[in-house]
Amino acid sequence: MNIKSVRYVLGWILNIEAALMGLPLVTAVIYREKQGFAFLAVMALCALLGFLLTHKRPNNPNFYAREGFVATALSWIVMSVFGALPFVLSGDIPRFVDALFETVSGFTTTGASILSDVEAMSHCCMIWRCFTHWIGGMGVLVFLLAVLPMVGGSNMFLMKAESPGPVVGKLVPKVRYTAQILYLLYVVLTIVQFILLLLGGMVPFEALCTVFGTAGTGGFGFRNDSFTSFSPYIQWVVTIFMILFGVNFNVYFLIFMKKIRDALSCEEMRWYLIIIVAATLLVFANIYDATLTAEHNLRNAAFQVASIITTTGFATVDFDLWPSFSKGVLVLLMFIGACAGSTGGGLKVSRWVMSAKAMGGYVGSFLHPRSVRRVRFEGKDVEEETLYAIYVYFVGAFIIFCASVLVVSLENMDLVSTFTAVATTFNNVGPGLALVGPTCNFGFLSDLSKVVLIFDMLAGRLEIFPMLMLLYPPLWREVYRSNRSRKRRGEAADNGKRGAIK
Amino acid sequence: MNIKSVRYVLGWILNIEAALMGLPLVTAVIYREKQGFAFLAVMALCALLGFLLTHKRPNNPNFYAREGFVATALSWIVMSVFGALPFVLSGDIPRFVDALFETVSGFTTTGASILSDVEAMSHCCMIWRCFTHWIGGMGVLVFLLAVLPMVGGSNMFLMKAESPGPVVGKLVPKVRYTAQILYLLYVVLTIVQFILLLLGGMVPFEALCTVFGTAGTGGFGFRNDSFTSFSPYIQWVVTIFMILFGVNFNVYFLIFMKKIRDALSCEEMRWYLIIIVAATLLVFANIYDATLTAEHNLRNAAFQVASIITTTGFATVDFDLWPSFSKGVLVLLMFIGACAGSTGGGLKVSRWVMSAKAMGGYVGSFLHPRSVRRVRFEGKDVEEETLYAIYVYFVGAFIIFCASVLVVSLENMDLVSTFTAVATTFNNVGPGLALVGPTCNFGFLSDLSKVVLIFDMLAGRLEIFPMLMLLYPPLWREVYRSNRSRKRRGEAADNGKRGAIK
Repeated sequence: MNIKSVRYVLGWILNIEAALMGLPLVTAVIYREKQGFAFLAVMALCALLGFLLTHKRPNNPNFYAREGFVATALSWIVMSVFGALPFVLSGDIPRFVDALFETVSGFTTTGASILSDVEAMSHCCMIWRCFTHWIGGMGVLVFLLAVLPMVGGSNMFLMKAESPGPVVGKLVPKVRYTAQILYLLYVVLTIVQFILLLLGGMVPFEALCTVFGTAGTGGFGFRNDSFTSFSPYIQWVVTIFMILFGVNFNVYFLIFMKKIRDALSCEEMRWYLIIIVAATLLVFANIYDATLTAEHNLRNAAFQVASIITTTGFATVDFDLWPSFSKGVLVLLMFIGACAGSTGGGLKVSRWVMSAKAMGGYVGSFLHPRSVRRVRFEGKDVEEETLYAIYVYFVGAFIIFCASVLVVSLENMDLVSTFTAVATTFNNVGPGLALVGPTCNFGFLSDLSKVVLIFDMLAGRLEIFPMLMLLYPPLWREVYRSNRSRKRRGEAADNGKRGAIK
Repeated sequence: MNIKSVRYVLGWILNIEAALMGLPLVTAVIYREKQGFAFLAVMALCALLGFLLTHKRPNNPNFYAREGFVATALSWIVMSVFGALPFVLSGDIPRFVDALFETVSGFTTTGASILSDVEAMSHCCMIWRCFTHWIGGMGVLVFLLAVLPMVGGSNMFLMKAESPGPVVGKLVPKVRYTAQILYLLYVVLTIVQFILLLLGGMVPFEALCTVFGTAGTGGFGFRNDSFTSFSPYIQWVVTIFMILFGVNFNVYFLIFMKKIRDALSCEEMRWYLIIIVAATLLVFANIYDATLTAEHNLRNAAFQVASIITTTGFATVDFDLWPSFSKGVLVLLMFIGACAGSTGGGLKVSRWVMSAKAMGGYVGSFLHPRSVRRVRFEGKDVEEETLYAIYVYFVGAFIIFCASVLVVSLENMDLVSTFTAVATTFNNVGPGLALVGPTCNFGFLSDLSKVVLIFDMLAGRLEIFPMLMLLYPPLWREVYRSNRSRKRRGEAADNGKRGAIK
């Protein structure tokens, strides 16, 4: 276990976090808010710790999957802990567990909140809260890879551990350029949406909060009624951009490379759009309210469907009041999730499509026993290894899900609240149903439940394995062993030196 | 597609069903009930149709997995349709959909009922209703294999299609003897329980109904309060025998062969017992009611846990009134299910244990990339093929489950009722929660929902693939093609004959 390199990555994460807090600091200066001092203090702390951890570059280049997983999981935890401090110090969210819940919910682009009155928050805290969505959406390690030339070999494992989806490929041969292109596309799309929102008459501060939440498919609201009080134009823009940010970024890269035909033939995107259209029509028919216009009904259906399948979590209506069928569709969409390689969460469309094809092929293999069994996806045969990874992923997700439901059920809420509280956090959506519905919040839960849901949000965003790795006892035996052997080598070196002096 | 052999199997199923209806007929004679004539009429019909379908033995020995699946699925449908007729003709369940629901619920050992007042039913209909559990528990095709020497090669595929579990092995080299041994063990265990219940003072009729429900892990009650009003002794006997019938019958075969040590080392059984003990203790602690004795609390916890994990569905308390945690445990147990190769339903303990090990091994493979990944179960390496089968099984189960929930949600019940109605039928348990809880019934549902749940019960009992095969379009193209080519051969033969006459 290459502990030094992991520590080095963590140091850089702190440096980057210090830099990113510049945005809330500037906001505090503009609005003359004293909460800015909290950010200043945490920035200084992050920069100091970051400097201590990064001033010596590790020389051991061995950085494999395990280091990638551990570094990623710890990075997200460290980032969240320090990201939560300004909320506590500024007094906007006085309890640390609540602040941590809110920050993890931000970075993991969940958008579940413990706040009952978001409008009471200071501007600098609000912008930081929304900004965490944007940072977490594309991933902070991807950002790190884009700006920093890392020690050889380590890059791909960090990228794989942080990027969502069953298969993580590079757009271009170099990981660093891949990361830069991803962020470039991300920034461009964000700016386009920002401009469109300004054209719709949104004030810049709210437009910024909205684009951060949409781009990261996060979903923190900054008004108590989420998006209900915004104009139809704004609601449609947000609907379309939620859907756009749920598309595999490979598609945008292909468009960027002018390979339009290849981009449009992306199978995952096509299934994703088919599901959105089908779900919207079903919900539209089910919720149709004759007192509203057809456009209004369609907008409500499309907004909520887009918001849930992309795991954003904004709302224009209280869908907890919808009929059971529509609620059932939304809960199912939570588990389907967005495309791999997007900023969205959930189990990902590609996993389901490949699995459904594998299942269909299996039934077919009984009919024609001599036929070769293979699963085609995106024009290629899927490797058995990929299907195996999907299988264990589903199993791991199911185990985490059930264990979480059992712990949260100790709250003795109704089962719908319990089930959807876990479903919405694990899939990084935001709102659930009943007691954790779109008009409610997670503040009333016990600290135990909050900690479990914090774990679920991280596990969902990092696609379970990095977090499971941290709970895997042999890892810690390995860490202990590496530490001991390093110390022994150190002592041996010391003895050698002393011998030389003699 | 060997249609003639499938038809031949269906004919034998009808013959057997005619014979099995002897029990309700005798009951009708004893209690002098006029409903007996309904059974007499259906017996005659089954025997007539059975004779027509079986009087010519097919000479094509090709009988593979697809024929096994189709024959099994159709057998269960045919058996249920004819099994439902006496309820309709006797007037005890006048509507055919209701009667079919009740009969499928019986054969699939689900135990979900549409009756609001079971005590009003005639004795002959009641014994038939409970007897269906016993028939369906070990399987009617297994019975067929035990009594009838089939055409070569076909036996194992029928056995595989009907027997639950990821791997179906033969106890002894010959399938016919395996089937006979299974039924022998089944009968012996049933008789032992029957005697123990009589010793507890139960009247023979009720004891018979109880053993049928316990042995098949079915769960139809014959009193409106299920088992609440029975003595603690009876409740404990039923608890223990529910657990015994949920054990893999391989274990009893090994005991029967005096290989006690091998029997006790069955890994699936050990996990199954560990889960039962753990769940019982958790529920016991959660529901502890100081106004009852500790034994009473323990009995309630153990009875309900055993009833749900074995997917029997008897009840001694209304567990819908329990705290959320205990309800959560019970819902989870529904999905875990009993052991493979038992009479119980659910997804089976072995599938979960192998999956959890595969998942753990996958996490471990990141830590030690060079180690060989393998999953050990029952002292052997599990084949990749088996894990693949489990994967597609989970996917298929999930798809059926979600589609069913969406259709049933059109009833606009609360989501807990909708979800558990599907969960309890698909896993062949019986009672759900809320509107379909242990004190309620399924009679109020629409016909559409009933048909969906009928499909789910059959899909759950036959482990999805036989039923999915029936919905697989290429199968019907294949059937159409075989039919046409047979007709063409027939015409050619006719032409040949005519040519000879000339």
